[in-house]
Amino acid sequence: MEETFVPLRGIKNDLRARLLCYKQDWTGGIKAGIRILAPTTYIFFASAIPVISFGEQLERNTDGTLTAVQTLSSTALCGVIHSLVGGQPLLILGVAEPTVLMYTFMFDFVKDRKDLGQKLFLAWTGWVCVWTALLLFLLAVLGACSIINRFTRLAGELFGLLIAMLFMQQAIRGVIEEFGIPERENRNQAALLPSWRFGNGMFALVLSFGLLLTALRSRKARSWRYGTGWLRGFIADYGVPFMVLVWTAVSYIPVKDVPRGIPRRLFSPNPWSSGAYSNWTVVKEMLNVPPLYIVGAFIPATMIAVLYYFDHSVASQLAQQKEFNLKKPSSYHYDLLLLGFLTILCGLIGIPPSNGVIPQSPMHTKSLATLKHQLLRNKLTSTARKSIRKNSNLVQLYRNMQEAYNEMQTPLAYQMPPMLGLKELKDSTIQLASSTGYIDAPVDETIFDVDKDIDDLLPVEVKEQRLSNLLQALMVGFCVAAMPLLKKIPTSVLWGYFAFMAIESLPGNQFWERILLLFTAPSRRYKVLVKYHATFIETVPFKTIALFTLFQTAYLLLCFGITWIPIAGVLFPLLIMLLVPVRQYFLPKFFKGAHLQDLDAAEYEEAPAIPFNMSFEDQEIPTRSTDIDSGEILDEMITRSRGEIRRTHSPKITSSTPNSTEDLKPAFSPRMSQRAFSPKFTGKGVVGKQTHSPGPSTLGKITSGSSPN
Amino acid sequence: MEETFVPLRGIKNDLRARLLCYKQDWTGGIKAGIRILAPTTYIFFASAIPVISFGEQLERNTDGTLTAVQTLSSTALCGVIHSLVGGQPLLILGVAEPTVLMYTFMFDFVKDRKDLGQKLFLAWTGWVCVWTALLLFLLAVLGACSIINRFTRLAGELFGLLIAMLFMQQAIRGVIEEFGIPERENRNQAALLPSWRFGNGMFALVLSFGLLLTALRSRKARSWRYGTGWLRGFIADYGVPFMVLVWTAVSYIPVKDVPRGIPRRLFSPNPWSSGAYSNWTVVKEMLNVPPLYIVGAFIPATMIAVLYYFDHSVASQLAQQKEFNLKKPSSYHYDLLLLGFLTILCGLIGIPPSNGVIPQSPMHTKSLATLKHQLLRNKLTSTARKSIRKNSNLVQLYRNMQEAYNEMQTPLAYQMPPMLGLKELKDSTIQLASSTGYIDAPVDETIFDVDKDIDDLLPVEVKEQRLSNLLQALMVGFCVAAMPLLKKIPTSVLWGYFAFMAIESLPGNQFWERILLLFTAPSRRYKVLVKYHATFIETVPFKTIALFTLFQTAYLLLCFGITWIPIAGVLFPLLIMLLVPVRQYFLPKFFKGAHLQDLDAAEYEEAPAIPFNMSFEDQEIPTRSTDIDSGEILDEMITRSRGEIRRTHSPKITSSTPNSTEDLKPAFSPRMSQRAFSPKFTGKGVVGKQTHSPGPSTLGKITSGSSPN
Repeated sequence: MEETFVPLRGIKNDLRARLLCYKQDWTGGIKAGIRILAPTTYIFFASAIPVISFGEQLERNTDGTLTAVQTLSSTALCGVIHSLVGGQPLLILGVAEPTVLMYTFMFDFVKDRKDLGQKLFLAWTGWVCVWTALLLFLLAVLGACSIINRFTRLAGELFGLLIAMLFMQQAIRGVIEEFGIPERENRNQAALLPSWRFGNGMFALVLSFGLLLTALRSRKARSWRYGTGWLRGFIADYGVPFMVLVWTAVSYIPVKDVPRGIPRRLFSPNPWSSGAYSNWTVVKEMLNVPPLYIVGAFIPATMIAVLYYFDHSVASQLAQQKEFNLKKPSSYHYDLLLLGFLTILCGLIGIPPSNGVIPQSPMHTKSLATLKHQLLRNKLTSTARKSIRKNSNLVQLYRNMQEAYNEMQTPLAYQMPPMLGLKELKDSTIQLASSTGYIDAPVDETIFDVDKDIDDLLPVEVKEQRLSNLLQALMVGFCVAAMPLLKKIPTSVLWGYFAFMAIESLPGNQFWERILLLFTAPSRRYKVLVKYHATFIETVPFKTIALFTLFQTAYLLLCFGITWIPIAGVLFPLLIMLLVPVRQYFLPKFFKGAHLQDLDAAEYEEAPAIPFNMSFEDQEIPTRSTDIDSGEILDEMITRSRGEIRRTHSPKITSSTPNSTEDLKPAFSPRMSQRAFSPKFTGKGVVGKQTHSPGPSTLGKITSGSSPN
Repeated sequence: MEETFVPLRGIKNDLRARLLCYKQDWTGGIKAGIRILAPTTYIFFASAIPVISFGEQLERNTDGTLTAVQTLSSTALCGVIHSLVGGQPLLILGVAEPTVLMYTFMFDFVKDRKDLGQKLFLAWTGWVCVWTALLLFLLAVLGACSIINRFTRLAGELFGLLIAMLFMQQAIRGVIEEFGIPERENRNQAALLPSWRFGNGMFALVLSFGLLLTALRSRKARSWRYGTGWLRGFIADYGVPFMVLVWTAVSYIPVKDVPRGIPRRLFSPNPWSSGAYSNWTVVKEMLNVPPLYIVGAFIPATMIAVLYYFDHSVASQLAQQKEFNLKKPSSYHYDLLLLGFLTILCGLIGIPPSNGVIPQSPMHTKSLATLKHQLLRNKLTSTARKSIRKNSNLVQLYRNMQEAYNEMQTPLAYQMPPMLGLKELKDSTIQLASSTGYIDAPVDETIFDVDKDIDDLLPVEVKEQRLSNLLQALMVGFCVAAMPLLKKIPTSVLWGYFAFMAIESLPGNQFWERILLLFTAPSRRYKVLVKYHATFIETVPFKTIALFTLFQTAYLLLCFGITWIPIAGVLFPLLIMLLVPVRQYFLPKFFKGAHLQDLDAAEYEEAPAIPFNMSFEDQEIPTRSTDIDSGEILDEMITRSRGEIRRTHSPKITSSTPNSTEDLKPAFSPRMSQRAFSPKFTGKGVVGKQTHSPGPSTLGKITSGSSPN
């Protein structure tokens, strides 16, 4: 994305590019069929549960003026609008923790003013929203999002980890509070006697750890050894929501002698109870706010605008990381403009506004990548089976699969040529097959293992569509009506879920992986290279990696510390934005340019965006997937360490070799090994050398196989 | 072991063979130095904790006549004597659950008899012990243990799994009881109010699951990625006892408002409190028992004798499995004789007798295998480093290592030639190295990775000595004095430990692995083959495996059901002994002989015992390690699935290849692959085919490497 500050140009480009995919956004989603429910449910829970908990928090902090009903409404309303007319449909909107903090500060400010008071609180925040929206319009029109490329991994991943820390903090704090007396309750209840509080706290520990451990396990179900493939897939897709149900059911087991109120459950007024809907008509009271306060509302508005600008853009950026290999364009400018409208809308109906949320947005993309993988897999598997039944040879088999693969490619209006991944793999496989004599034989399952080999052929692709976003937003909206049901969920299950979200957001975050690397024994560091394909381990000296990571960790702790300071705390995104100049002017003084480049790829999100903007301005420029070495792209794919999206990129005949049986272990690509063969790396001890010797048993086989020749 | 029923011959053979190793049993243990404490502590906990809990159980069941003081004393006394003068020092002795059950039944019988009563209970059990001992003498002298070879895997593993089930049952029952009112307590205590009982139960869940999960994790510490090697080794060695301390410390965290008695802790009188030592002089009262009851004591004695005969022999057998590759002889006959003496001794001082226990005995051998592995590893590592510093080439390096290895071999009196494992590996490695041109170059760490390659060279060997057994028995004895400290351990930690022991005993049990196989998706069954090296998957049709396993499972459940029946329950070993004729006469009617042979190797324990007995009778007969294909032996080694004892058996130059980085994954041996290449297996779909294609990335490298030639 070029850094253009010509007014409106960014918005125009975004709109033009996204309009071209708009129809496919819907048809693609609908064609996915019932399977779209897996990512939808997954994101719905990830979206709804924190929003309910934030609603509870707001209710305590605003003396009941705002509740979970309002936060859910805002999330649902903004989500539906964004999924329908928003730019990037991978972005998930929701009421976020910073918004809750800002509203708490504003309430504290308002409640003691005689001329405002609790009565005019929502009217005043309405004005704050108006100002915020105006600022967001300005930023969007002037192309402020152009600088998004300067938000490198450094800032984005630090922000991601900070959010994970805040979620984990909330989880821990929540569990500890289960031992105490909740603020809102009647203190004379039996459930609040010291003895029952102790039992409640211990029960909370059981429920929250139970949810956390089982949810983490269930996400890895696809690589389990037991159960049928169907069951494993189902557990991996729906295991987390299912576990929320299971542990909620468990929470009902103790009945004998145990008083009501143990364990504690979600608290929220029903939307139809009196007073729960006074906010909707707040626009009528906005003119009752004294003019001085209308003007003064500009001050919190600037803070919120900065916050939203950063939060929204980074959430969008993290949902479109290079590794996801997206085909459709980004839409930073237009989405920021839309966020302005949504903020005004929310302000006028007295609900807290929503913005792009982390970690839900990247979680959304990840789950859609899993979906796409399954769809491609099913198609190619049936094609391969058909070919084998017809006694095709290996070349024919690959030809048929290539055709099937092309059919599955998103038929976008501007017709990108299909990915070259399959072709390249085919070529090298066939080359190998011909040297081993398999080439002309009819393929059978011993030569081409349909179930396993196809997994290895598939590149990471994401099912980019609008349906999952729309459906999850509608489901969040439905929660408002289903409040009596939601209130059956114990709060402790919620804390376990918070911890789960924090942990789920870690894999794939290179900053986190580097922190782990610091604690890794030197002799085992190469494992990180193997598992995460973190090439910087080869190219950057360990001391530099350590120094860079320590700097980043110190900065992270600083940001985390800032969130503990009352009002100023909400501005922690400013501190993260400060990383942009720090990265550009300060860090190069301490680190070599090449090392910085390896540790913190600057064109973080560049690649997926370029071809689209350019292809409209100059149809001659080749699209991205042809001008970038496709080996490069495939290499990037195995960076995701999530159990579900993995692949190897290696020529092969069958994949179920004795050495690569562990599902989670990506094999090395030939490109990697060639690099490691160069003199530069051989002298490097463990890290460099592990690649220039073949696997023990394989070597034995190769030599024994080749000697008769 | 031949089936000889010539009186005393078995005992004589055992004694003669073991006497030859007796000195080395001690010197070997002492030479191991401080490291011997790792298996010692591990077994001490595994031995003491159940014994304390059984003592608690006995105390409830015998109205306080017998307590943990007596069970601990018996375990310590018998353990010390057995380690000093016993035959097989790998066998761990202790008071076992069946003994507790028998004593409970006997107490119930005695307490209502007017002419016996609680007062003469111990005197009467003294007579039972005398009769039992006489029967055991008879069995030992007549060579009853000769038929031990007919106790195939079928019976032994079923028994092992049954014990695991009983341990798990105790763990579950224990945790559930934490919610109830314990029998012995004063019911008016605050801690027994319903509210506190609820809290106590929940706290128990936290503590027991905490112990279970952390203990299981800590055992795998050696393959962790984080921390230094020293720390990882320390955690793997001492993690379980350490976790008992940690969770005991955690149990002291809640103090505010929480009444004494939460969580519940171990209960036992101190040995110096009045009444706790009345048993020691029971011999004086034995003649007060009416003659009719002295004769009648023969009836329970027969039951106990059968039980001990079976239990003691199977525990000894499981501790000497073929996979452990033991070098010293077994001693079934003599150990049974000694058990008779120990039983009389215990009977005369009024404590319940001890016998060989499962799973502690096999756990003992496993932990000693880990120890031996470390010792060998350290020696070879330093030798290899020295050679590398001297610029040796690969041949010299291996020669030096072979010498160091030979030095480490147990210098037994009858001089076995050293194992050939290293030699064979050396040959194939050098052959490979010469073909790739490394042969004459000075070895450096890129050719021979000291840390990793040595691990792969080492065969499974066990540090066979008496010191760890003696020390653990002394530590159990010390527990009697340390009772006030032991009483700080919460009972819930104990239940977690029971569950831990049950789970720890599962890996390596082929019956268990076959049960898991039934639930494994067909496409993933080959993984079981890879992980456990379970060759029967290749040679026996799945339906036969399933049928055999289902039969065994049904039989297991029958045995488990029997334990629930009051008095008769204690005779469940009889049911397991019934498996011997069932296996010999009934099963062959339903299964093919070859399949039975593969599923249930009949010479279960044969191999390690033969050379010793025979080498005394006929010095000409070649010892086992030369006449059995050493590839076979090495193949057996990777059968152990425990995280600690693993190795690959494959020619190789460096081991840290990208394909074998996962510590837990044994590589295939060339022998395996050749087998899989034969036409017999290639047609078998997944199971057969995975071995005849090299790893994806390795293949790529080989071809790219060989093309310039």
